[in-house]
Amino acid sequence: MFIIGELINGMYKNIGRAIKDKDKAAIQKCALDQVKVGADALDVNCGPASRDPVFDIRWLIESIQEVTDKPLALDSSKPAVIESGLKVAKARAIINSTTADLEKLEILVPLAKKYNAKLIGLTISSKGIPQNKDQRLELAAAIVANCSDAGLPIEDLYLDPIVMPVNVAQAQMCEILEAIREFKIISDPAPKSIIGLSNVSQGACVRSLINRTFLTMAAAFGLDAAILDPLDKELMDAAVTSDLIMNKNIYCDSYLDAYRKK
Amino acid sequence: MFIIGELINGMYKNIGRAIKDKDKAAIQKCALDQVKVGADALDVNCGPASRDPVFDIRWLIESIQEVTDKPLALDSSKPAVIESGLKVAKARAIINSTTADLEKLEILVPLAKKYNAKLIGLTISSKGIPQNKDQRLELAAAIVANCSDAGLPIEDLYLDPIVMPVNVAQAQMCEILEAIREFKIISDPAPKSIIGLSNVSQGACVRSLINRTFLTMAAAFGLDAAILDPLDKELMDAAVTSDLIMNKNIYCDSYLDAYRKK
Repeated sequence: MFIIGELINGMYKNIGRAIKDKDKAAIQKCALDQVKVGADALDVNCGPASRDPVFDIRWLIESIQEVTDKPLALDSSKPAVIESGLKVAKARAIINSTTADLEKLEILVPLAKKYNAKLIGLTISSKGIPQNKDQRLELAAAIVANCSDAGLPIEDLYLDPIVMPVNVAQAQMCEILEAIREFKIISDPAPKSIIGLSNVSQGACVRSLINRTFLTMAAAFGLDAAILDPLDKELMDAAVTSDLIMNKNIYCDSYLDAYRKK
Repeated sequence: MFIIGELINGMYKNIGRAIKDKDKAAIQKCALDQVKVGADALDVNCGPASRDPVFDIRWLIESIQEVTDKPLALDSSKPAVIESGLKVAKARAIINSTTADLEKLEILVPLAKKYNAKLIGLTISSKGIPQNKDQRLELAAAIVANCSDAGLPIEDLYLDPIVMPVNVAQAQMCEILEAIREFKIISDPAPKSIIGLSNVSQGACVRSLINRTFLTMAAAFGLDAAILDPLDKELMDAAVTSDLIMNKNIYCDSYLDAYRKK
């Protein structure tokens, strides 16, 4: 599974402060901490308190790129912030994210093409949050069709089924898992799938257990990528063991150590 | 998920000794230990060293029934041993197990009917271990057809896809999971599914992690029951959380405690 570390986000107090103070060492430490435990890419989000996110995302990216060459997921609802990041990103970036709304797709899909970036497509629109698998697939198909028409390679598209908290939308969990499975049959070559994991346990008491249980189930349904906290060791153990059972890593007795040393 | 505790098995040293010495207290403690942590039923197996399994299974069942009224899974390859147990079992017993071989089905399906027992059907035959999903489904369909012809309610049949160790049959894990999913479409009403979990980690180093990861995936594919070690707390946490995500338990913040107190 492709793991995108979620911790460089101005929403977290320590990162919010580091962005405000331009404390490069704090950002670089957070980047390296995540890479060391196996993150394949890092999400970068200036957070709601940033007064100048167009500048801040560039500063974040340049700071991170001094210590790692992992790809970055540029996380903003504002296309201008994303383009600011795309201009300085060295590895192939991931745009996080477009919705299924035409006005979003018409800006972000061309941006992905222009900068040779990958794109996360949320199966959500201005009409609201999807309530079942079929609504997710309908929105997914609209995103795929738009990308396809624009000439974006569908293998570079990551569809996100919108994970809901289990304590408010328990009946939707199965719908989300089935959507992940069926995203694959929307087109050939198939789009990839991704989830923002931690939302599943938002407001719950035993967050880490719920997170890793849902991630394991999603992996069984073919999930390709997840945005999560890679410092949660039990979560990463679950991710690596899921890949083992899905036959994506070759078994060896020390498969957990082997993953961490890769 | 319906949890069958696996610990009363003469293959384990302490139980083997308790059977030999007719140490009733040791058996009763093992039964209560499993029931306390949430086992819905208990597997009962005299083990390979029993000289008189026809007598020993009766002694085991009578000892266990003095302390709990949970249903028992009578685990033997010998029909005479199973019938000896069926005669004294008070709650509806589970016959563990028949294969898909006609000579087995012709004895065990009528036994299940005669004693109003449930039946575990292994998707294996004298031809060997199934190598993929389709072979499992073929054997499953043969078992379902036999039970159906004999008038055994199909809801009382638990199909077992034969879990292989991940370190020797890694590519089969997906086949086993898909088989669990597709067992449901063999007939209407659908047969149930069950796995003997611990085999998945046989010979591996990190057994508990592999066990709970596979169980969580199987739960996502609709698994109804599992034979496992209920004293493995992390495994039981995974099972209970899987039921939560599959919407089989209603969410509350203390759902883990609520399960243990039920």
